[in-house]
Amino acid sequence: MSIASTIACQPVLIAGRWRDANLVESFRATDPSHNQPIELDFPVSGWADVDEALRAATVAAAELRSLPAAKIAEFLEVYADLIQADAAELVETAHRETGLPKSPRLADVELPRTINQLKLAAAAAREGSWAMPVIDSAASIRSCYEPLGPVCVFGPNNFPFAFNSAAGGDFAAAIAAGNPVIAKANSSHPDTTRCFAVLALQAIERVGLPAATVQLIYRTGHQDGERMVADPRCGATGYTGSRSAGLALKAAADAAGKPIYLELSSVNPVVITTSALNQRGGQIVDEFVGSVLMGAGQFCTNPGLVLLVRSPAAETFINAVREKFAAQTPGTLLSPAVCRSLGRSVHVLADAGAEMLTGGGEALPDRCARPNAWMRAAADQFLADPEVFQTEAFGNASLVVVADDVDQLVGVIEALEGNLTGCVYSATDDPDYEPIAKALTPKVGRLLNDKMPTGVAVSPAMNHGGPYPATGHPGFTAVGIPAAIFRFAKLTCYDNVSEPRLPWLLRNANPTGGTWRQIDGRWTTDNVG
Amino acid sequence: MSIASTIACQPVLIAGRWRDANLVESFRATDPSHNQPIELDFPVSGWADVDEALRAATVAAAELRSLPAAKIAEFLEVYADLIQADAAELVETAHRETGLPKSPRLADVELPRTINQLKLAAAAAREGSWAMPVIDSAASIRSCYEPLGPVCVFGPNNFPFAFNSAAGGDFAAAIAAGNPVIAKANSSHPDTTRCFAVLALQAIERVGLPAATVQLIYRTGHQDGERMVADPRCGATGYTGSRSAGLALKAAADAAGKPIYLELSSVNPVVITTSALNQRGGQIVDEFVGSVLMGAGQFCTNPGLVLLVRSPAAETFINAVREKFAAQTPGTLLSPAVCRSLGRSVHVLADAGAEMLTGGGEALPDRCARPNAWMRAAADQFLADPEVFQTEAFGNASLVVVADDVDQLVGVIEALEGNLTGCVYSATDDPDYEPIAKALTPKVGRLLNDKMPTGVAVSPAMNHGGPYPATGHPGFTAVGIPAAIFRFAKLTCYDNVSEPRLPWLLRNANPTGGTWRQIDGRWTTDNVG
Repeated sequence: MSIASTIACQPVLIAGRWRDANLVESFRATDPSHNQPIELDFPVSGWADVDEALRAATVAAAELRSLPAAKIAEFLEVYADLIQADAAELVETAHRETGLPKSPRLADVELPRTINQLKLAAAAAREGSWAMPVIDSAASIRSCYEPLGPVCVFGPNNFPFAFNSAAGGDFAAAIAAGNPVIAKANSSHPDTTRCFAVLALQAIERVGLPAATVQLIYRTGHQDGERMVADPRCGATGYTGSRSAGLALKAAADAAGKPIYLELSSVNPVVITTSALNQRGGQIVDEFVGSVLMGAGQFCTNPGLVLLVRSPAAETFINAVREKFAAQTPGTLLSPAVCRSLGRSVHVLADAGAEMLTGGGEALPDRCARPNAWMRAAADQFLADPEVFQTEAFGNASLVVVADDVDQLVGVIEALEGNLTGCVYSATDDPDYEPIAKALTPKVGRLLNDKMPTGVAVSPAMNHGGPYPATGHPGFTAVGIPAAIFRFAKLTCYDNVSEPRLPWLLRNANPTGGTWRQIDGRWTTDNVG
Repeated sequence: MSIASTIACQPVLIAGRWRDANLVESFRATDPSHNQPIELDFPVSGWADVDEALRAATVAAAELRSLPAAKIAEFLEVYADLIQADAAELVETAHRETGLPKSPRLADVELPRTINQLKLAAAAAREGSWAMPVIDSAASIRSCYEPLGPVCVFGPNNFPFAFNSAAGGDFAAAIAAGNPVIAKANSSHPDTTRCFAVLALQAIERVGLPAATVQLIYRTGHQDGERMVADPRCGATGYTGSRSAGLALKAAADAAGKPIYLELSSVNPVVITTSALNQRGGQIVDEFVGSVLMGAGQFCTNPGLVLLVRSPAAETFINAVREKFAAQTPGTLLSPAVCRSLGRSVHVLADAGAEMLTGGGEALPDRCARPNAWMRAAADQFLADPEVFQTEAFGNASLVVVADDVDQLVGVIEALEGNLTGCVYSATDDPDYEPIAKALTPKVGRLLNDKMPTGVAVSPAMNHGGPYPATGHPGFTAVGIPAAIFRFAKLTCYDNVSEPRLPWLLRNANPTGGTWRQIDGRWTTDNVG
């Protein structure tokens, strides 16, 4: 860190203007592929920046409420097109800051997904079904979800595009609901986020949205972050990242009665029955190794915990995974912080008694990376200290826990915290399936069968959520349009309000001809009456 | 309070058995119509009771998950019928404990409403649309809401039937979602709640639900209450009552990541434009006085704050209300505690500078009652200390705030906290409507036009909710089937799960022939494919 006043920092975007930050200090991101700081200084903003952003966002929120939803949809589409046009620079910048492969990961998977999310959000905003309009025509009572004010978005380190605070899932959902966004960049890819915000402002100007519809700061002190999510002017917060930082923000937001949607850590248990291993163990080894080492294991849904019942097939599985883990070159981790944290977590598990089957050594010297780690513990060990054995080792690491029998395996599942996902690999008519699924389902947001959890399809039926502490509330999903949108909305009921005074979604005529509304108990695209 | 061991207390209902409480002390309710304690001792339970209830509820929750929803619906219907059959005793008991009139209030309004809610919840449980099943047939991803475990329900003092913790709205919603309920009786009507629980257990036995589907305790120490809502075995909590107790429970539940749905205080602003007063001021006086004095003003949606612009018509309105308030015999308040609290709140407003137009004197000697209170303040005063002037005076009291002009009135609205409701009385094409409604809508869960807020219809389009601190989250409603139900549920996604392993709501065939599901983007009652 340098003395603030002597640094020429990258500007923040506040109230439609790129300007110097109200600076308390500065920071640099690291190129993890070379373990070298990137020579661009970014500001740690003081409260004055946050305060001005909240003030400008409040004005923008009121203006946005008066605009037609089609205008918001247009913004999302223009923005998506600008991102597409600037893809090469975005990919280059994100690669430098995260070490994620340019192709296929960044250019061919994550950027198209990001653009698709923005377009789906645009379509949802234009069509309005996301707002769940409900009409009781006899009682003259009508309700729908409406924007709730400025949304603060904290993006994670592991998806510089698809969960970027200025372009990703929470951003798209908050905007589609009709709210302005204050993006807090992830400190590991500030320049990528800056590039997005440049394009967002262009799209705002082209479409004619309020200037403060999208604002950007890079970092604040912890106290200012907590003050921001609890500020009376903040409508809600979306946060994806580490549990400790997330829970500190949650405590602040909760105390002020502000909604906060969190996506925190998850070990994503994968249960493989003995019948499944006997039937197709080799294939499952390949699927598992592919899932856990893809992107150096840096996914929220990375399978960090495998549960097996003791058997020869289990030993074969464990050995085959060990060989593949040992043979495969470890991927580059997102940052020195991730590299350190992975080392610490593996140590915690080893100290608790997990056997290190492969990996666990020193970090590589020339880039952010650690040997692929495959660890083993007995269910007895796990059950003696379930909290420690659920330590998330974010990165290319996984722990296999071997139970004596299915009953003990179910006991391990019952000792699990809430998770985003849980997988069961089993055979057809497998008698072990039912007790396992029965114990696992209440613990997870998404139950998968015979499939690894790392793919998170952008589907209306997706749930990228789950019981605490995977998230802050078990009823919401961060992925999936339109369900992700209504998190950033308040329910408003209009009682005895005459037709011309109703919002567009609640008038008698179907607002688009194709908007789904529940009218007198029936979901329909018809008009009222 | 008496020494616990010497008291023969009413039993608690735990794990299907009426048994003596693990007692820390005892309490009695008061007959507010005569200001006399009722000679029935009820226990304040220690942690051992709560612990056993949570343990039994956990077992019941797992059993309920395996039962067909029709069974749960049947329970709700049988229970509704038993309540109907026992109506006379329930009305007598509730009248003694609350002072609410037997007729029409208890017998002809609240009990039928309670029975109706249970039946609507039964229909919703049987039909399943409440769970919002979403099916993406191409991706083989399907999701719906599912029960989340034992629900603790804390009922309020003011609706001994319709919001009773063992029979009211939260109870019906939690059971319809498939969860067992641990009811915490309101201390002002424990015997009414005990009567309900007796009938609930009969219904449980008749239908064959798990014994611990409904359990009852009457009271705990504050610490044990907080420990209960934060316990790992608790799925969620529904609370209706005072802000201070509610926020203490919220802090405990939030820290443990447990959903808690609160319905707290609300002053329910009523804005009346000068045009409306000029047009039909006399009629509005009648509507307002009826609304605020009905049930001695003890409604969550009681209009406790009237906003007017200075004019001769405003003076006429204020005087007419004063005369009616002074002339009408004050209703009986629910308890000595409500009577004391109302006195305190009126004092707070008077001390802040509100002029006492009528009322404000001593409590009546022979029953729980206070003179109807009508207070006045200028908008300048309000704006100088908006927090104090929003003190909720729960009971037969209301404050009128007079603004210099519409701009200042809008300023008062902008200084309001979140409320359950907001009303605007205006004329057709009233130019004042738009600025008022624009400022008021973001502050309230329900915007009414030309109608007082005290009626809360049980409609699918109802929102009995609102921004903090009226509730804990602006996206949920406590009244209205089916929307109230999914609060007590977790979203679960089934990814690549074969048809026979899917829950009933997500299989290809429509589960009832009439269940609304979103299949591939369309809401339909069709089968998949």
